[in-house]
Amino acid sequence: MPAPGEDEVLVKVSHLSLDPYMRGRMSDAKSYADPVAVDAVMTGQGVGHVVESRAEGFAEGDLVTGMTGWQSHAVLSGKELRKLDAVLAPSTALGVLGMPGFTGWTGMTKYGRPQQGETLVVAAATGPVGSMVGQLAKRAGMRTVAIAGGAEKCRIAQETFGFDTAIDHHAFDEVADLRAAIAAAAPDGVDVYFENVGGDVLRAVLPLLNTHARVPVIGTVAWYEGVSTDGPDTLPALWRQVLVKRLSIQGLIIFDHWDDFPAFLDEVAPLVKSGGVTWLEDVAQGLENAPQAFLDMLRGGNLGKQIVAL
Amino acid sequence: MPAPGEDEVLVKVSHLSLDPYMRGRMSDAKSYADPVAVDAVMTGQGVGHVVESRAEGFAEGDLVTGMTGWQSHAVLSGKELRKLDAVLAPSTALGVLGMPGFTGWTGMTKYGRPQQGETLVVAAATGPVGSMVGQLAKRAGMRTVAIAGGAEKCRIAQETFGFDTAIDHHAFDEVADLRAAIAAAAPDGVDVYFENVGGDVLRAVLPLLNTHARVPVIGTVAWYEGVSTDGPDTLPALWRQVLVKRLSIQGLIIFDHWDDFPAFLDEVAPLVKSGGVTWLEDVAQGLENAPQAFLDMLRGGNLGKQIVAL
Repeated sequence: MPAPGEDEVLVKVSHLSLDPYMRGRMSDAKSYADPVAVDAVMTGQGVGHVVESRAEGFAEGDLVTGMTGWQSHAVLSGKELRKLDAVLAPSTALGVLGMPGFTGWTGMTKYGRPQQGETLVVAAATGPVGSMVGQLAKRAGMRTVAIAGGAEKCRIAQETFGFDTAIDHHAFDEVADLRAAIAAAAPDGVDVYFENVGGDVLRAVLPLLNTHARVPVIGTVAWYEGVSTDGPDTLPALWRQVLVKRLSIQGLIIFDHWDDFPAFLDEVAPLVKSGGVTWLEDVAQGLENAPQAFLDMLRGGNLGKQIVAL
Repeated sequence: MPAPGEDEVLVKVSHLSLDPYMRGRMSDAKSYADPVAVDAVMTGQGVGHVVESRAEGFAEGDLVTGMTGWQSHAVLSGKELRKLDAVLAPSTALGVLGMPGFTGWTGMTKYGRPQQGETLVVAAATGPVGSMVGQLAKRAGMRTVAIAGGAEKCRIAQETFGFDTAIDHHAFDEVADLRAAIAAAAPDGVDVYFENVGGDVLRAVLPLLNTHARVPVIGTVAWYEGVSTDGPDTLPALWRQVLVKRLSIQGLIIFDHWDDFPAFLDEVAPLVKSGGVTWLEDVAQGLENAPQAFLDMLRGGNLGKQIVAL
């Protein structure tokens, strides 16, 4: 058991967050952050209770969150921890009120810029980013189109998260057929395509974008396990659309935006408390099941925010 | 000779503007504006003197500009005309203080967002957009890298427009070699790629973009006469860069931005008068030579803003 040094806190982790970005840390392909070294503790956000504190402002029993990594106990400096509001379920700090929810909120607030009467398309729509995006868009008066994998997720997208319509991408083998389904669901075209998957969904949506459409790009999970670069080259067609439709395409890595996290909590935490924004969690039991839960999540096997309960 | 109706003005055109966007009006491919009909007057901006006015605020002899089209005389409503400052050469209203200059200024001001110490790359660097972009970037303290076709244009990019360095894209057959030359000219990477050509220059620059790079897209002239879509598909690689580097890609059609034209004139006209921003024109003589001058321009045969003097 590690012991906290000066200004440090020992945390017993109760919930661990699994997020698609972690896949990048398991690869040595150049990216925005260094990979996790072989045999090092896998990085990740956790929630837990303070067991021992040598940092000002933290006492035994406090509920906290921080980058604990995939382990049962973690020593972190007080500056790396945030105390949680005990009114809310602890795991909300990992999903709807954590990094995924904050990513959806930031992408929509800064780059999606929803307007009344416009249309949103988002994939992985029952996930913690997609469900936040859909709910924020709906609150802004947009028509919301969910894309999800399977009939059950489509049902939940509509019933739990209030999407106007939902499309099961498993039902289509061809991009053109998926595109036709999206076009039917978005008869006025697409004003915000919130990109968290890439792949066939991107290819299906691109020609449906309206003039002045916005495309926040927060992930390309469909391509994390390899990309087919078989021709034709579709870059020139995209580029023509960027110009002709004055598209706004903006990559977003949430680590650039932490300064806005308090503003996010101020706006969204009350909505979570009041039920104005809802969430869904998929909880795996035990740290030993984290690797399999992570693999399942990348394949869309989870339903809602993937958590590991320790 | 047409006669002006009520609130209209008859203008004798002295200078006509030739611009790459006109190529799109000569094609029935769906775009942001309708094509010009066969046998209709080709659209375009002109400068001239008022011959007869039935519109308030305009008198015979006034120097004006408006969308005269490719013709010697045009009737336009007073609302479609703008009186020019006679201190400046009339043709400046078509280039450095007209649509191209305004496009460069808008792209840089709104989307390029130049920062001291950063690096700009722009192609067609001696043209009226590229030369404005380069001069504004230099004034903002950026390192400026010109790409131009031929040694003479490279010399002018540096000597006339003050680019720090210039690369002759004719000197490279392979994208990789052009990329190596740009990389050598931009040792700290590229923060703003002002896109007005597409094609090989785009392919060369993309991997050199820095984190948080901005890519205003105002034209893709290299692809106006047809695009090779031979594989591999380079869209996935672009998309990964959008995410990992948080790129900001923004299409711009200047017709969306006319409300900002007075702010542009307020800022840039004094610089043109003082010599703080300079310009270059290539003047073809006679309306009958406009078609050939237009073709030459699309192939890079012009040196500076292409004008037709009538």
